[in-house]
Amino acid sequence: MSPTTWERLAAALERNAPANPATEARLRSALALIVSHPGKLVRAGLVLAAAERHGLAPAAAEELACAIEFFHAASLILDDLPCMDDAVTRRGQACVHRQHGEATAILAALALINRAYALIGAAVAAQPRRIRAEVNVCLDHHLGLAGLVGGQAWDLAFAHTDRSARLVSRIAAGKTGALFALALLLPAVLARPSQDERRHLHALCVYWSQLFQIADDLHDVSASGAEGGKSTGRDRILARPNLAIALGVPAARRRLALLNQQAGRTLAALAGRAAARWDYLQKFHQDLLKPMAGAATARTEAA
Amino acid sequence: MSPTTWERLAAALERNAPANPATEARLRSALALIVSHPGKLVRAGLVLAAAERHGLAPAAAEELACAIEFFHAASLILDDLPCMDDAVTRRGQACVHRQHGEATAILAALALINRAYALIGAAVAAQPRRIRAEVNVCLDHHLGLAGLVGGQAWDLAFAHTDRSARLVSRIAAGKTGALFALALLLPAVLARPSQDERRHLHALCVYWSQLFQIADDLHDVSASGAEGGKSTGRDRILARPNLAIALGVPAARRRLALLNQQAGRTLAALAGRAAARWDYLQKFHQDLLKPMAGAATARTEAA
Repeated sequence: MSPTTWERLAAALERNAPANPATEARLRSALALIVSHPGKLVRAGLVLAAAERHGLAPAAAEELACAIEFFHAASLILDDLPCMDDAVTRRGQACVHRQHGEATAILAALALINRAYALIGAAVAAQPRRIRAEVNVCLDHHLGLAGLVGGQAWDLAFAHTDRSARLVSRIAAGKTGALFALALLLPAVLARPSQDERRHLHALCVYWSQLFQIADDLHDVSASGAEGGKSTGRDRILARPNLAIALGVPAARRRLALLNQQAGRTLAALAGRAAARWDYLQKFHQDLLKPMAGAATARTEAA
Repeated sequence: MSPTTWERLAAALERNAPANPATEARLRSALALIVSHPGKLVRAGLVLAAAERHGLAPAAAEELACAIEFFHAASLILDDLPCMDDAVTRRGQACVHRQHGEATAILAALALINRAYALIGAAVAAQPRRIRAEVNVCLDHHLGLAGLVGGQAWDLAFAHTDRSARLVSRIAAGKTGALFALALLLPAVLARPSQDERRHLHALCVYWSQLFQIADDLHDVSASGAEGGKSTGRDRILARPNLAIALGVPAARRRLALLNQQAGRTLAALAGRAAARWDYLQKFHQDLLKPMAGAATARTEAA
């Protein structure tokens, strides 16, 4: 993502964030903390590019991008809670619950989720009924039991399972995958994709979410705590699902390479049908790989 | 509400609840617990009657009613958490987090919220854009910082304030009031009310939510712990906002009577304009008062 796009999104986040002059002080501070540390905005960048490519006006595309980012931010806040991952830092800062208390962290997450739904409702208000219905089903599926919430429940239950690589993959698909899928599929609904295109888009969701998760898991087992701005090396301690632990680091790296190839073939198939329509996906794929390639090499040298 | 309506709503809740065959066991149990103890369904009953009166098909009216009830159930689950009210029992059962852990309780609440938005999206899908936009704004306002989430933040901050009756009223308006307002105003949007009718509906929200809150607060200061199925007598211990404590019991009872009169006048004004259109409000008002009147007398005798 270009620095200009990042700045555009960061400004949109501030503009679209939950805001009310009569907000209680701790909750206001918590929301300000979240909005002022927006992270890499990977998902928002994808949604913005997709929504504009598929015909949404710039302001509506920004609303959609902010909504997905607010869902993401809310899920991080809740994942970090003591009863979940009990994380200490996030985006180079003490976690929201460490700064403002657990109750305020939960309320901030709820405010973000509530705002996200309102933004999506506004962004797709002018769409025909069939598209709105599909957006509705897409949100229900990827955020609910079949997606983010369900994946997080399996994630927390992981310590009591056989800890197989298969289960780790399923958790990754349900959790990291859910928000990636939402960022990819929600704006794609606007393009009224063919059955064939849908199949490729769903495949891409699987490859990307696993790519992203493996890279993150490799990072967890090999990086130092200070790196990347969040608590690392915690997966083993907490018996959390981690593919680099389940498969071993070399096998995890081989899988990373394989997923990259598979994603590349899927992108080629999409481009073969309607190149301009899906060009933003190719660009996103390259952006996604850049830090991974760099980090993977650095880790090989360090190991 | 008639027993038949209650049963219809309880069945609709089961049918519309978050469900997925691959749900992790604890989360599935938590959701089953919530759905199998639906409470009095006061808000759902109002929404069902209103939505049908204003022209929604029975299935869509049930979806809307379930959605409001799911928001309500989620807010209770989260309010009961150790970091919020730290409650022990709810609806005659150990609280969700006491039975299934805090993380599962939070995830169950999120699953309910997610499902509620999906149900509303489906229920109003066929409505014209102006109505859908108003539904969207209504949800954003009453669930977000200006409503439920914001009210809960003030509620939690209450111990550090001057604990004035004025602030208690404001918190009641923001918290209990938010869900009452949603149950009253969301389906009323379908009727395209006039400016005059809107004014009366908003006034009714204020009276009803305060009526309901004062009755609840009186119950907390005077009832025994076992009564009513939830932890009572806790407001003083936890320095929580309670109008019966802030005003004193006799003044709280006088305010209850005054609010009843004011609500009655507002209902008469609405009926004077279009009696059949708003008849369900009169019926709801009578249902709302029944247990209050009984309980108030019982408390006077006990005190």
